[in-house]
Amino acid sequence: MSHRPIITLTTDFGATDHFAAVMKGVILGINPEVQIVDICNYVAPYDIFDAAYSLVQSYRFFPNDTIHLAVVDPGVGTTRRPILAWTGQYKFVAPDNGVLSLIFEREAGAEVRHVTASHYFLNPVSNTFQGRDVFAPVAGWLSRGVDVDKFGDPITDYAKFKSPQPKHVSERLVKGVILKADRFGNLITNIAPEDIPQLFSEDPPTFKIVINQREITHLNLAYSMGKPSELFAIVGSAGFIEICLNRGSAAKMLNANRGAEVGVIIGEEPLT
Amino acid sequence: MSHRPIITLTTDFGATDHFAAVMKGVILGINPEVQIVDICNYVAPYDIFDAAYSLVQSYRFFPNDTIHLAVVDPGVGTTRRPILAWTGQYKFVAPDNGVLSLIFEREAGAEVRHVTASHYFLNPVSNTFQGRDVFAPVAGWLSRGVDVDKFGDPITDYAKFKSPQPKHVSERLVKGVILKADRFGNLITNIAPEDIPQLFSEDPPTFKIVINQREITHLNLAYSMGKPSELFAIVGSAGFIEICLNRGSAAKMLNANRGAEVGVIIGEEPLT
Amino acid sequence: MSHRPIITLTTDFGATDHFAAVMKGVILGINPEVQIVDICNYVAPYDIFDAAYSLVQSYRFFPNDTIHLAVVDPGVGTTRRPILAWTGQYKFVAPDNGVLSLIFEREAGAEVRHVTASHYFLNPVSNTFQGRDVFAPVAGWLSRGVDVDKFGDPITDYAKFKSPQPKHVSERLVKGVILKADRFGNLITNIAPEDIPQLFSEDPPTFKIVINQREITHLNLAYSMGKPSELFAIVGSAGFIEICLNRGSAAKMLNANRGAEVGVIIGEEPLT
Repeated sequence: MSHRPIITLTTDFGATDHFAAVMKGVILGINPEVQIVDICNYVAPYDIFDAAYSLVQSYRFFPNDTIHLAVVDPGVGTTRRPILAWTGQYKFVAPDNGVLSLIFEREAGAEVRHVTASHYFLNPVSNTFQGRDVFAPVAGWLSRGVDVDKFGDPITDYAKFKSPQPKHVSERLVKGVILKADRFGNLITNIAPEDIPQLFSEDPPTFKIVINQREITHLNLAYSMGKPSELFAIVGSAGFIEICLNRGSAAKMLNANRGAEVGVIIGEEPLT
Repeated sequence: MSHRPIITLTTDFGATDHFAAVMKGVILGINPEVQIVDICNYVAPYDIFDAAYSLVQSYRFFPNDTIHLAVVDPGVGTTRRPILAWTGQYKFVAPDNGVLSLIFEREAGAEVRHVTASHYFLNPVSNTFQGRDVFAPVAGWLSRGVDVDKFGDPITDYAKFKSPQPKHVSERLVKGVILKADRFGNLITNIAPEDIPQLFSEDPPTFKIVINQREITHLNLAYSMGKPSELFAIVGSAGFIEICLNRGSAAKMLNANRGAEVGVIIGEEPLT
Repeated sequence: MSHRPIITLTTDFGATDHFAAVMKGVILGINPEVQIVDICNYVAPYDIFDAAYSLVQSYRFFPNDTIHLAVVDPGVGTTRRPILAWTGQYKFVAPDNGVLSLIFEREAGAEVRHVTASHYFLNPVSNTFQGRDVFAPVAGWLSRGVDVDKFGDPITDYAKFKSPQPKHVSERLVKGVILKADRFGNLITNIAPEDIPQLFSEDPPTFKIVINQREITHLNLAYSMGKPSELFAIVGSAGFIEICLNRGSAAKMLNANRGAEVGVIIGEEPLT
């Protein structure tokens, strides 16, 4: 590697404690040349899906050889395993609790290992902060160029959940779910344009998107095309349909958040 | 350049999403040697003035050749232009929506260009996240040493608002406005010592500062000189008069925030 | 020094203002090769103990020669001195207000100097933001290799408070206090396993931990061993007993925070 290696952090540690900083200190103690970038330390506490979402939305925008460290770890101190995944392009270090699921969905060829080489860990290893004692040191040593096979053997039985898929209930009804409310109050659904291609055809039909008994009937190309106080849909940067309000929070107006159900109904007739 | 180039970020992306991190990934993908510093990612959502304020208070403290990237961009996806400003000392990359106005006020000689060289952008460019697709890549390529004239032609019709100026209503009354409430609840006005030089003379007159029907009559030299629960004024680090409370929040006590009016009355007699 | 020097920041500046960023700009202006790591910028405003706690929990995890900068400075602009402490391994730059007290407890041999060499400061020095004008420049010059004795003379009368110690009220009762509620709502006490060794013996007695009239009777080895809605104790990563809730906030359930009293009672009989 000719340039400084990069390690990213995705955690639920927030910024009011020293936890993320201690992980950085441990990494820099092993490899002071690393560049560390926070992807998100404000993952909702214990929320494995939220971490998985932030990570999958970000990882590909980093250069090759970036090491992505994800520590949302409600099972810390139990028998849940530390794992290391290697896609050929990126390395991931995380607890084996599903936090890499969305990565595995996109990176079918990822090689996953159970990290057992405890001589790379801090000593002793605590039961309460293995971000510091296990995951940060492994990332640090990886950034020094230690081969992935030095950390443990390949496994195939790692934890993996399927991302929530939209359901095609009928030809005219697709049901989905809110994956995240972002800082602006935009509600990101799990419905992609490919799931409702009619709406993106040359002569798109009328439609309504229903969420918390409210109906959204406009699809805009830019946030600022929304009229004041008018909810609308947009294809967001994550590749999904978002429900938005121009310069306002759709999440607040709809009192909706992650997990809320959303339906897309094509055409004007009532559903039979 | 002999040292690692520096890029700063001023955005309204917050820290609960991955948006700022993705911009950093894009920058590091173009130039892995960059040092990235967050000026503020907690600009109030869509608040161009708030971003302009953070940026103007910070930019000069960074070394020469620093590239300042400001992405508060409610008009993303419309025809608003991406611009690049070059002062000889610093470069700025931002949407053409006024976010650089306070920079332009201080840097009269800045050369501004409309960034049109789309081969530097990510491909495709989304309508919803041009921090990632346009602004971060331009900053990344600038940090690699690409000349500013490679990005587009000079323009003079860029967006620019005037910062709110204090009004000298009479010899005894200056009216201003709160520019920002900082984390401590200090209320930063737009009134500088030069606007009320009497108060800083050898034999200063009595005065009162009026905000939300409350009167402040003390000017202190240090925050800790304030008595418990007593509001006072101070010349703050931004160069403006601030309304403060020692170890407490003036903003809360006064129920005041950005935009609140403030008056400085010299002398004790009622205004005629 | 063969690698890039590291400077850490511990402040109460938050992330909604530009204050921490300006300090970073000043540091990078003096030494653009520095790697800057935030330990915590969300120290509770003016809370010297909270800063001391974050710092003492973190500093040893950074590599040798790291410079730790702590700016929680309610006395800024008064006669309180800037100080520099040198342990042989780490350097600390801070106001002389006790913020390094917990470091001094652990690093008995630390040499402390009153920083008086004002030619290293920004000019002029403000009365309101010496993190920018004094502390950041001193850290920057230290990172350039300037000897500690160039900054001022050794002192021994620096401010220092004793950390709150648990009280052994009787053989069966130890009283302590909550030092911090972390992001997860875990309540960190000042009671270490060494203070109640019976509980960690081979045949531990029954016990109860009392806080806000609630009794905690379980000691778990991992957070996830807690049953839903059941408060429990654990030995946390700070080396102290913590009161926790599995995937929930003990702080909220107990309505307790820093400063709350906690008692550990050994055995089942009522206290006489």
